[in-house]
This record gives sequence, structure tokens and C-alpha cells, in this order.
Amino acid sequence: MITLKDIEAARERIRDSIFLTPCTYSEAFSQLTGSRIFFKLENLQMTGSFKERGALNKILTLTEEERRSGVIAASAGNHAQSVAYHATKQGIRSKICMPITAPLVKLTATKRYGAEVVLYGNSFDEAGEEARRLCDLEHLTFIHAFNDEAVIAGQGTAGLELLEQNAFLEAVVVPVGGGGLIGGMACAIKEINPRIKVIGVQTAKVPSMQVALAEHHPVSLPAATTIGDGIAVRRAGDLTLPLVEKYVDEIVTVDDEEIANAILLLLEKEKTVAEGAGAAGLAAVLHDKVSLRGKKVAVVISGGNIDVMFLSRIIERGLVKDGRLVRLRLRVPDHAGSLAGITSVIAHGRGNVIDVQHERAYFGANLGETTIDITLETRGPEHIDELTSALTAAGYHFERVL
Amino acid sequence: MITLKDIEAARERIRDSIFLTPCTYSEAFSQLTGSRIFFKLENLQMTGSFKERGALNKILTLTEEERRSGVIAASAGNHAQSVAYHATKQGIRSKICMPITAPLVKLTATKRYGAEVVLYGNSFDEAGEEARRLCDLEHLTFIHAFNDEAVIAGQGTAGLELLEQNAFLEAVVVPVGGGGLIGGMACAIKEINPRIKVIGVQTAKVPSMQVALAEHHPVSLPAATTIGDGIAVRRAGDLTLPLVEKYVDEIVTVDDEEIANAILLLLEKEKTVAEGAGAAGLAAVLHDKVSLRGKKVAVVISGGNIDVMFLSRIIERGLVKDGRLVRLRLRVPDHAGSLAGITSVIAHGRGNVIDVQHERAYFGANLGETTIDITLETRGPEHIDELTSALTAAGYHFERVL
Repeated sequence: MITLKDIEAARERIRDSIFLTPCTYSEAFSQLTGSRIFFKLENLQMTGSFKERGALNKILTLTEEERRSGVIAASAGNHAQSVAYHATKQGIRSKICMPITAPLVKLTATKRYGAEVVLYGNSFDEAGEEARRLCDLEHLTFIHAFNDEAVIAGQGTAGLELLEQNAFLEAVVVPVGGGGLIGGMACAIKEINPRIKVIGVQTAKVPSMQVALAEHHPVSLPAATTIGDGIAVRRAGDLTLPLVEKYVDEIVTVDDEEIANAILLLLEKEKTVAEGAGAAGLAAVLHDKVSLRGKKVAVVISGGNIDVMFLSRIIERGLVKDGRLVRLRLRVPDHAGSLAGITSVIAHGRGNVIDVQHERAYFGANLGETTIDITLETRGPEHIDELTSALTAAGYHFERVL
Repeated sequence: MITLKDIEAARERIRDSIFLTPCTYSEAFSQLTGSRIFFKLENLQMTGSFKERGALNKILTLTEEERRSGVIAASAGNHAQSVAYHATKQGIRSKICMPITAPLVKLTATKRYGAEVVLYGNSFDEAGEEARRLCDLEHLTFIHAFNDEAVIAGQGTAGLELLEQNAFLEAVVVPVGGGGLIGGMACAIKEINPRIKVIGVQTAKVPSMQVALAEHHPVSLPAATTIGDGIAVRRAGDLTLPLVEKYVDEIVTVDDEEIANAILLLLEKEKTVAEGAGAAGLAAVLHDKVSLRGKKVAVVISGGNIDVMFLSRIIERGLVKDGRLVRLRLRVPDHAGSLAGITSVIAHGRGNVIDVQHERAYFGANLGETTIDITLETRGPEHIDELTSALTAAGYHFERVL
């Protein structure tokens, strides 16, 4: 098992090439949660996640011969980009195996950082097997995303930084996939100050560490699609589980809606972009999965690599949920002036019409009637109430489309 | 005219209550621009902009009697929130005048920070006059958003921080509205190191500082709607203009499309949220309005208070422009299997269909035909070429909807 010394050594090793990410106090989230919230912004690392710490520490512990041969990893995500980036910077050849279904953006980013990308198989597991095969064949060094002591020690450096940045912390909340980040961080934190609570957060869809803790050994869970794809790791590591057992106080889970909400709030209030996995820790705090009221809490925002198109959808769904977008379905006589009547009521109430759809054959309109779906931008639930009251007062019948 | 000493005094005064925002190196933008780009992230201030520096410095220079009476400002934006936040924190009453057309989100935020909000008039100018009237009537201290020496000195502290954070800077790029930020920063920077270039960036729609420099006095320009509303200031200050004349090397302008592009790239590559005014500096660098190749450049991201709904639109427009969203209009026989034929070609080419619209009466379809508008998510222009070639090869005729 790794020790504090390993993490301290990693810190010295990687110090010059890893961005010392800020640990910023958030007044907005402190007010929202009743805790004193600090964010450790690992999404600001060069390639957008904490994974660089472990990958670089591993790379810097290679022998001269291993450096000459090169490294290999299996990942379609942040680990791939981290290995590619730091291997290239160190003048080391890197090869990354991804399933052929990997999104092109990830493939392009990894290539741009200088890796040779091998597309193989239909699943992450198949790509991983190919990586192991190529590793032996070409005498490369395999860099596992979490089940490797040098990688775990590297991730732990985020814990050392946290304690230097804020000596008064009482709890640290960390997203958990394979357990590399929380294993390393919890070891660093607890060895220095055992009174600090360390809490891990998994996606409810793939709670592999929670299950491993219950069963006392890693268990393979079925794969699942989740917004927190970066932590949807099917099986905990056999090197990370003992660290989690020894040092972590609790593992909780969050669902996709909770994560999406956290991403949106981070954008709005913290002006920062988190990916699903990266926002999982905050989701747990916001949705009371952990009881940390009144405590000084560092929440690790572990990564920010999210597709902007996906981000735009999260924003829209979030606005609908917050009542800042609403769709009303009205049934009105199909003649001149019907729409004008509705829109004048809405204009008077200062709602902003963003879409109108007429439907005459469906939604139960009688002959000579039409249904009109009207989508509005509003200032929130109270504004919706004002607008709907005004429509009712003007004699319109409608339902809210959900 | 303010001096370096005033700015240094402001620095000591506000040091404990202002977040020392990071000045982070950006590899991604350095590669994009050929400069070495550092971002001064003022969007991470508590209320989301640099305006706190000036507002707080002004508040901390009030006499005991002025503190007892309270302060007043006219603003519907970042200045309002800054004054409200820091006045409240200092136990001082604050009143903010906004036009009645001010967005409710701004109003709510300002109230939440503890100010009394007065809605008056249909324009910013009318609200400003009301503020002056109330100021005299109630013996309040008026805090101007930029034309005030204490405010300018406060904004200048961002310049001192920059030089401490990066002693090797060769140029600093700053968004310009009324000139408070650039006036203060340029004074600090040039007095310490006159070899550092200081470049200001305005919105092309309201280039009031550029015009004032040409005319050698402030000139009132007509109001205009722009994505950079935070810098759409109609008239430069008579206190800021002399500072800009003395210390600033150049003022350039950017248009709304350039700003939108910068906002999107900051989200994607820097994981940070900028408002239009906040991204103007980067827009100038990205679109070669300044020649800084090979130089070490700090770009000030001055604010991050952007409506997320607006952000979502910027993302979508950006994706269309980058060819990651595309709409094709096909004319096909109106019978069973027509759509299936098209979608199978697209599925084979791994395009993701996100919307389909049939139109039979418009767009010039013959009787027995229909036009189909099909909107696709793609991996970029090359992928669009692949998909359109496949459609052509399968015998389909189409046009791209722009």
C-alpha cells in the first residue's frame, strides 16, 4: 500500500509540470448549502482533469530503458489525454487504445497531444485487452488509469495541496471512479490530519466502490450510460480498495439529474465548466447526501471535459426545471386574431415568446379549433404564475406541457 | 490624475476583501494565437467581475459620516452588484438606481447582495439622473462606475497583481467601457514597467474611448445593443480619458461575432465562463486585431455574468459556424420509405439526427413531393463532406440551410 512518503515524493517529482490549481472559497455555494464551501478546481489542469498528476508521476518513475520503449494506456477519456500530453512533453512515445465507438473529439484531442491512437473493439474492455497485448508485444509500459501505485501517489498530491491551501478544512468530497484519486488523496489527508472527513461520491448507476466495500473485494458491475461517464468504472481496483477501506469515511451516490443540476449551478454561480464526473462531489453536497452543515468543506471539481453541445442541453433542461422556460398548450378557435389575443396577454406580462407551434389534427382539437403550443422565456415560477393567471383572466384554457 | 501611489494604497486597503484572482497560463490559446497567453480571471471575483475593486476602494475611503449616510450608484450590471455586496459587508446602506427595463436577474442579484433597488426611467441615463437627485436629497455618496479617482485606483490593483504574478509580461489586453479598468491598470503597469504594451478593446458598436482619443475629449455616442453590454458605455470619462491618452498604447474594436466566438472557446478550452464584455480582450487577440505574436500576453477576462440561456444560444450558433451542427434540405417523393432511405445513409455515415421537419406546400416542392429539413450533429466540416458525398452518391439532391 502506498504511504504519505510516496505522495510527498510524487509532489516533488511533478511539481514543476502540474498546475497548482486554486482552492477557491465560494460564497454562493456556502449560502446554498450552509457549509463553507471551497472548490479545488482540477478542471483547470492543462488537459482539463486531475489525471495528469498520476500519469506524470508514473512517467517520471520510468527507467531509462522504459522511457526509450514508450508507454501505453487504454482510455477514451481524461487519462488518455493526460498520458499523451505528459509523455510527449517528456519526449516519450505513447500509444492509446480506444474502442472504435470513442467520440471523435476525444480521439482528436489525444492525437493532438502527440499519442498514437489505436482503435480496437466495441467496448472499453476489448480496447483494454488490445492494449495489454500491444504492451507485451512492443515492450511498452502500461499506465493503468487507477490501479497502479505511482498513479495513485500522483493523484494523492491534490490532497497535499489542499491541506497547504487551507489548513482549516474539516471535510473533503471527492468523485470516485476506480478509486485512484480518492485513494491517494485520503491517504495524504488522513495521515496528516485524521480528523478531516473524506467522503467519496459515485454515480448511482455504477457504484462499484460502494459494492466493493460491502463485499470486501472488487466486483464487476454491468456497464451503464451516465452523464458521469468519467466515474462510471465497472470494477474498483485491488490496489485502491484497501486505501478506501482504510482512509475513506463514507461513499455516497448521486443520480444523473443531480449531477446535471450541479453542472448548471457551477456555470451560473462559479463561472466554471465541470464535466459530469467532475460535478458529482458538488451534487452530493447540494442534494444532502452528506451531512456537512456548518463545516469547512473542500469539494474537488475533478474535470471539465464536457462536450459543449451536451452543456447546451443541460442548460435548457435546467431552465425548464427552474421554470425559466415553460411551454403552454392552448386550444383556441382557428380564426384570425386567436394568436394575437394570446401574444398580447403574454407581451403585457413581459413573457418572451421563443417558439409557437400550431396543431389542428392531434392533441384533441375539435374541427374549427387549433391547439397552440407556445414556449416562453420567463423569470421563474412566480412569473409563470403571473402569466398563467393573466391568461386565465382573459378567458384562455391551457395546460402546461412537461 | 491618479498615481501609482494611489493604486498601491488601494491595494493595501482592499487586499483582505478582494479575491486574488489567478493569472493562468493557457497552452491551448497560446497554440491558437502564437503568443504566450495568460488569463487574469476577474470573472472569478465573488460577484463575477473586477468592479468590486473600485467599488470597495471607494467605500473604504469614505468618512465616518459618509459611511453613516450610505452610498448610491446607477447601474444595472456588475457595478451595481459590486457596490451592493461590499457596502453591505461594510455595514453601509446602499441604494442602486436601475431603469425599469433592467433584467429581473440583475435586479434580484443586486437585492440579494443587500442593496435597496430603485427602478426609474426607461434608459440608463434617466436612472442615472434619478440617482443624482436621490444622492443630493438623501446626502448619500455617489459611486460612479468609472469616472471617480478612488474607483479608478481600485481597478488599477488588477495591474499590480498582474506584475507580481508574472514579471515577464510583454503586453496586457484589457476590455474598455468607460475606461476605469484600463486607466487604472495602465497607470500601474506603465509606471512600473513602461516597456509593457497596454492595449484596450472596445465593442465596435460603441467605440466611445476610441472616438474620445481622436477628438481629444469625451463624445456621447448613440446607445446600441451588443453582446458586450458591459462595455457599451456611450461616453468616456473625463478622468479616465487623460489616463488612457498618457498610458495606453492602442485601442482596437471587436464585433459581436468575434466576441461570441471567444466566449465559446473560453468555455471549451479554458473551462471558464465569460460575459461578452469579459471576452472582448480575447476576441481581439484571436482575430488579429493586435499584433502580439511571440509575446507574453496577459488577457483580462473582466467578468463572467452572462445569462445561461444566452450562453446556450452562443453555443448553438458556434456549433453551426464550426460545422458541428448542420441542416440539409432534401426534396424527395412523398411516399413510404423516403425518410428511411435518407436516415439509413446518414446512420451509415454516423451522423446524429437531432431534428426532422417535413414541408409540402413551401420551399418549391412539386405535388407528390415533400421537402425534408434534417438537422444533424456532426464531427465537423470534413464529416459533413463525407455525409453529403454519401447522400449524393445515393442519388439525393439537397441544399445546405444557412
